[in-house]
Formats: sequence, structure tokens, C-alpha cells
Amino acid sequence: MITEGHIGFFFKPESIALIGASPNPEKLSYTILDSLLRMGFQGKIYPVNPGYQEIRGLKCYPGLDEIKNRVDIAVFAVPAPAVLEILNGSVENVKGAIIISSGFREIGPEGKELEIRLKEILNEKGIRAMGPNCLGIYDTITKVDTFFITSGKVERPARNGVSVLTQSGSFAAMIMDELANEGAGVARVVSYGNKVDVDESDCLEFLAGDDATKAVALYIESVGNGRRFIAAASGCVQKKPVIALKVGKREPGARAASSHTGAVSGRYEAYEAAFRKAGVIEVASYEELKDACKVLNRYPLAQGKRILIITDGGGIGISIADACEEAGLRAPEIASRTVEKLKKKLPAFASVKNPVDLTGSVRNEHYIAALQEAFGEGYDLAIVSLLWGPPLLTPDVAEKIRDFADSCGKPVLICSPGGKFSREMASAFTAAGMPVFFTPDSVVRAAAVLCGGKNKPESNLR
Amino acid sequence: MITEGHIGFFFKPESIALIGASPNPEKLSYTILDSLLRMGFQGKIYPVNPGYQEIRGLKCYPGLDEIKNRVDIAVFAVPAPAVLEILNGSVENVKGAIIISSGFREIGPEGKELEIRLKEILNEKGIRAMGPNCLGIYDTITKVDTFFITSGKVERPARNGVSVLTQSGSFAAMIMDELANEGAGVARVVSYGNKVDVDESDCLEFLAGDDATKAVALYIESVGNGRRFIAAASGCVQKKPVIALKVGKREPGARAASSHTGAVSGRYEAYEAAFRKAGVIEVASYEELKDACKVLNRYPLAQGKRILIITDGGGIGISIADACEEAGLRAPEIASRTVEKLKKKLPAFASVKNPVDLTGSVRNEHYIAALQEAFGEGYDLAIVSLLWGPPLLTPDVAEKIRDFADSCGKPVLICSPGGKFSREMASAFTAAGMPVFFTPDSVVRAAAVLCGGKNKPESNLR
Repeated sequence: MITEGHIGFFFKPESIALIGASPNPEKLSYTILDSLLRMGFQGKIYPVNPGYQEIRGLKCYPGLDEIKNRVDIAVFAVPAPAVLEILNGSVENVKGAIIISSGFREIGPEGKELEIRLKEILNEKGIRAMGPNCLGIYDTITKVDTFFITSGKVERPARNGVSVLTQSGSFAAMIMDELANEGAGVARVVSYGNKVDVDESDCLEFLAGDDATKAVALYIESVGNGRRFIAAASGCVQKKPVIALKVGKREPGARAASSHTGAVSGRYEAYEAAFRKAGVIEVASYEELKDACKVLNRYPLAQGKRILIITDGGGIGISIADACEEAGLRAPEIASRTVEKLKKKLPAFASVKNPVDLTGSVRNEHYIAALQEAFGEGYDLAIVSLLWGPPLLTPDVAEKIRDFADSCGKPVLICSPGGKFSREMASAFTAAGMPVFFTPDSVVRAAAVLCGGKNKPESNLR
Repeated sequence: MITEGHIGFFFKPESIALIGASPNPEKLSYTILDSLLRMGFQGKIYPVNPGYQEIRGLKCYPGLDEIKNRVDIAVFAVPAPAVLEILNGSVENVKGAIIISSGFREIGPEGKELEIRLKEILNEKGIRAMGPNCLGIYDTITKVDTFFITSGKVERPARNGVSVLTQSGSFAAMIMDELANEGAGVARVVSYGNKVDVDESDCLEFLAGDDATKAVALYIESVGNGRRFIAAASGCVQKKPVIALKVGKREPGARAASSHTGAVSGRYEAYEAAFRKAGVIEVASYEELKDACKVLNRYPLAQGKRILIITDGGGIGISIADACEEAGLRAPEIASRTVEKLKKKLPAFASVKNPVDLTGSVRNEHYIAALQEAFGEGYDLAIVSLLWGPPLLTPDVAEKIRDFADSCGKPVLICSPGGKFSREMASAFTAAGMPVFFTPDSVVRAAAVLCGGKNKPESNLR
């Protein structure tokens, strides 16, 4: 019987051994050791390689059995056959393994045979394992980083609340890099590849009880045990939002998935049903998943689907309103007595409807006035869009809007479209701890996720 | 009877007068004059303002009638009532006007009244006009720039083939800024605001015969004369691709549009039908329009919907394949004899299906080999995705792929997801003249546009 306790040690290791450690910067294992050192992992690190006495100032061991202490995680960065050979040897002190190595099920029948034997050995020895054919763990809490791509190539995000679970290593790398580039963080990222043992259900069970994780984002090619997945996901959803991107939905995506991590995708409709049953919010695309991660770092789910839109550019407001309707959100009119109050506080030509258009005459305080007067009147989420053309609009507005968002207890999402100048201005929001979305489409994708996606019927909401 | 000849002079002016010119950098007119000078407009520039003798080294005129030469375009940057007053005066030498000023129909009944009188005066005097409540023209061919937002705030794109027509000034500014930021160019951008006279149909008639324009992108809130629009758009579609984003599709987007440029949006279904009839490719969102502009600068429409996908990361390939299917594109299997040939030329673990996964062992020549062997076998468009993790992949691959694309005569689209490092690597493609898309979703949006969008039925294609 597998319980969350079984894999919890992967997320609080006191010791990590690196099989195949090397001082040669061209080796994957070099990057892994370098990442662990750079991250500042506080536990013991044991390089293992019979060819060296010492690597980067650390004592190097000829084999796992020469390490006379417990090894919480043994990271395997050696060819597939060597993984089996080593695990067949003396590994009594090893609790868990992260098998980076490829050359298993994903390469065809021969590799599949190896993977079956690998599974048998792991069972026999009682070792829990992630992989093979994976990147392993990037953990901003315990400072573990087994990703073999340098931070020069794939930037590492700072600490925040969303944990990401994925079969695909390239997906893990891509989303980490982009999130970091947009100033967004993560809690823990797990790339488990072929899932010879640890899978999304194990991880969901652990993350359900993980205080460091505020929300979970899943990238799914396939799920082995559907019933267990629904149970694990439901359990997690009770505690925090879980979102999922299912890829390999149809031919030929499904065909590609089968060779990629050896997965058989199964009928997409079964996944849709499982997500619905478990209360998992399904997203439709990579961009939607990325937007979801950004927004779930900052906000819990909204209480309903009524969106207030405030802009200083009419065209953008209309695009946001259109996208809201398209996504099943609502943008109801502002109550008429609020309109009267607002007209006194906003620029003369402002359009006091929903969307509110503050026009190019906008000053910082107009955004705050619009939020203060209108947001209480029956909206669940506000989208605030800023074009930085207006001469009296300054980045100081960011902290003011942040303070308002903090005090009102409802999500306020920021949209700042444009190029270099706009991104520079908008960085005031990132600095104030608010995620920034760069297109009307993107901010509405994030809003739709907070409003529960398509799996949360309107009738359940205000 | 209005023909294209009537507004052609807006796109080859020999003289521009700037009503309300000012040496004060806080005035909109200062930015307009500055933009014209920076762009290097080769015609005559006449600042007009009774308060000055000279502005920025140019002789300043007290009134339009004091300019003893023909004025092709009089740019009005004065309050709404002053526009009417000036036009009511002596303006015999003025051919066309760009009325930047707001304070007309978009502000309500009073402004509407002003706009009706404006229309009467223009008709009476035989002056063609763009605006009011607009940004006017940004033209990379004739070096005209009447946009009153500085290039420090809104970057100006370089010269390329797509012309953009829009009612919304904020939309014009936003897309120009983002295109410039992503290294993409434009031919001519026209922001015509309230359309007291010149509208999308006039512009489409002109652009149909404009050699500098390879494709047209439309942002539409409303169209006044539907029949004329269909005729103008059809005429343009005979010559070059026309794409359109209709905003204000439904309440409340439509409600916002009515106050924004005073437009009445009309039923969305009528627009859909008009686009279909005219052969206009409709895009669904701002992001899709931007992606379309980038790709139409480089490629004509594809001959069919069969997509070849080549990647070096399995997860990305699956996401691209999924997005293709979702967008109504097809990703048929590679013919088996091609598979055999390819296997000999690609890395050992490469997955030779569609998507082709070249894996982390990829070298530059593998991309070329995959394109050379597989693309001829019955695909209409190739999507090439590059993750820059693989150590043997270098930016030199960009020119090689560009050369292949040039020689094969079919579109090859580049997807390069990720953050700083990836963007830096991918800039080799931009430098080689190929647009880069940064997410699986984005490259597929561009591919879908080239494949004719939803208005081009599969049966018309190979």
C-alpha cells in the first residue's frame, strides 16, 4: 500500500548520491553537481565514480556501498545498462533513486525489456524511484536541483507557491525557463519521465499535504491507474487548486506521446471525465498552463465569474471583454448609482461602463478610485489593463493597486501589453509581487482558471 | 463615386501641414513633428500656429491659407471646436486631413453633433479625412508618422510587408510596439478612429493595388456599409491575403465598442458571413492577429493543411501536434520509405514519426536532413521547433533552415520556446529574416492563418 509518506523523503532529503559524477563540464552529471552546489543544498552530497578520489572538493566514492551512511536520493546519470548493474549490487543504504538516464521504454522493445527488469529490481530492493528518462526534481524549498541543463540555458525560477508535475522533461525545462523570465516562481517541479515507479498520483498525494505548495499544475501524457489518479487528485483538490494540461489528445499527438515517454495516451474523453470527477481544472494549452501558474502563485480561486474590467485604452478593453465572454466569464454592467459616483472621480471623457475606459487622461488615482467604487458592487475578479502612453500614469500605481488587492481579498489581475517600455513600466508590478500578463488573451486565460475553468459550472457560483 | 485614387495621396504625400504645432514637448503636436523629422519624411513640412514664427528650424505659418502651396495632408492636433472653425475658413489648398483630435462622437450627443457638422464641412470643401479620434498614419514606405506617442513609449517597427488597418488607436500602438519588440516589421499602419470619412473599405481599395503591401490585417469594431466592405475586401483578397479581427463580438464587448469610437457593432454573425463571402481570413484574438502579421510578412498562404513537425523535445512536439489538430490542421504520418531513409541520417534514438523528435543528441544538420527528406513527401508547411539545451545545436542552424525554406518555396515556421538564453539563440532566425514564435500555441496560430483559417475548407485544398 503506497501512501504519501513513502515519497515524502524525496522532498526533504538529507543526503544525495550522484552516480556517474564527473569533473568534465561536458557530462550531464557535472551540471547536476554544479546545480546542487549553486542552489545551496544543505544536506550531504556524495559523488560516486570509481575513476576519481575527489570532485569539486567533495570526496568521491567508488560505489554506493562505500558510503557508510544512508542515501536518501541516489541520482543515476549513467547509461541504462549500468543503472541495472549498480542497482543489482549492494544498495542497502539507498532509500530512493532518480534515474535521469534514457534508453528505456521510450526507445522500443529492447528498452522496454530493460525497464521491466528495472522495475523488478526496484521492487525487490524496496527502492522508490523517479524516472527513468527524466530531469528529476527542482525544489526551491529544499534546494534540490537534479536538472542536467545549466541555469545559463534554462533559468531557475525563484521560490513561490505552485508545484509542477510533468512526464516531459523538455516541458519542465521550457516552463521553468519562461516563468523565471517573466519573474514568476515555483515551489517544486518534478519531472518523472517514464514513471517506472513514482507517478503523478504519488506526487499529488504528497503535495496535498505539503504546506509549501499552494497549487499544483500537471502536464499529463498518460495516466496508468485512472481510479487511483482520481482519488489522489480529488484528495489534493480538497486542499488546493489542481490544474492539468492533457497532451496527446488525439492522433497524431497521441502517436508522438507513445514514443516520447513510452506512454499510451488512451481516449481523451476518459481524461476529461476524470478531471471533472476529481475537480481538476483542465487547461487547453501550454500558454494557459503557464498563465495559470503565474496567477495561482498569487491568488486562490475566485468566488464567481463576474469580471470588472478597467482600462485606459478602449480597444484593449473591448478585446478583454470579448475574450471574457468567449471563456464563459461574465462582465455585468456597473450599477447606475455607482456610475454616478464614479463619474465625479474619473477623467471627464472616461467611459463609465464595464469595461471602464479611463482614457489617455488617466492618473494613478483614477485606477484606485475605479477599483474602490466599482469592485465592491458585485464583482468577483478585476482585470486592470494599463497602456503606458498616458503622461500622468506612473509605475507608482503598482504598489497602490497591490495594496488595494491585498485589502479587498479578491483577485486583481494586471494586463500590460506592449514592448520594451511597457515591460519596463510593468516590472513595478512584478516587483510589488503581482504577476503581469502581456496580452488581453493571456490575462483572460488566467482569470478563467481562477474562475474554475470549464469544470466549474456557473450555477455553483454567485 | 469613391475610387482608390481618392485616398492614394495619403500614402504618397508631398507636403504635410501640422495644425497646432508647438515647441512644447508636453504637447501631442510636438511628438508628431518630432516623429516626422525622425522618420525622415522627404516632403515639405509646414507647422501651423499663429503663436510662433518658427518651430524646430521650420518656418511656422499663422494659418493654412498662408501656406501658398498645396497641402496634401493637414494634421489637426487642436481641440474639436477649433478643427471645425479652421476647416470653415480658407482651406482651398488642402487635399486631405488627419484629425487626431478627440471630443467627437465618442463622447456622446454633443460630440456627435460636432461630428455631423464636421462631415458636412468636409463634403462641402471636398476634403478627404481620416479620424477624428485617431492616431493617423505610420508609413514605413513614405516615412510618414503622425502617431502622437513617442517612440520611447511605443517602438516603431521596421519596414516589411503587412499593412494594418484599425479603428482603435490603442490597438495600433500596442501591436506596433509588440511587433517591433519581436523584430517584426510593417508596411503601413492606418488608425482612422471614428471614420467620419475614410474607412476600412477606402483603405482596402487602395491597399489592393499597393505593391508595398503583401498582406492586410484588419482590426474591426464596426463596419458602416457592409456591401461596400465585402466588395472592397473581395477585391483585395484577389491580390493578397486579408485577415481580420472583429472585436465587440457580443455584449459587453459590443457595449464598450459603442462608446469607444462611437461604433454600433451589429450582430457578429453578419460579420462572420461577410468575411466568409469576401474570403477574409478571420482570426479569433489579438494574439492570433499578431502572429498572423509576423508570418504574413514572410510567407504567402500555404497550398494545403498538411503539417510536418520537427522538434528536439518530445513534449513540445506533442503540444504542437495537439494544437494543430485543434486548429483543424492535419499532421499525417511520414511515408514508410522516407522513414527508412531518415533513420540512417538522424540520431540513434530519434523518433521518426510526425512529429519527428530529434532528441537532445541533435546536431544542426539533422534538422536540415529531416526537412530535405520528409518535407517533399506531401506536406504543405513545416513547423520546426528548437529547444536550445542540446549541446551540439548552434545558432548557425538558422541560416541553413532559412536557405532551405527559400529553396523549397513552402512555409517553414520556427518555434523557440523558453527564456533569455533561448531568445538570444533564436534571434539568429530573426536576423536571417525568419519570424520566430515563442510557444507551441503561437506557432500553430500562425500556421493556421497561412492555411487559410476556418474560412478555407479542407476540400479546396490538397
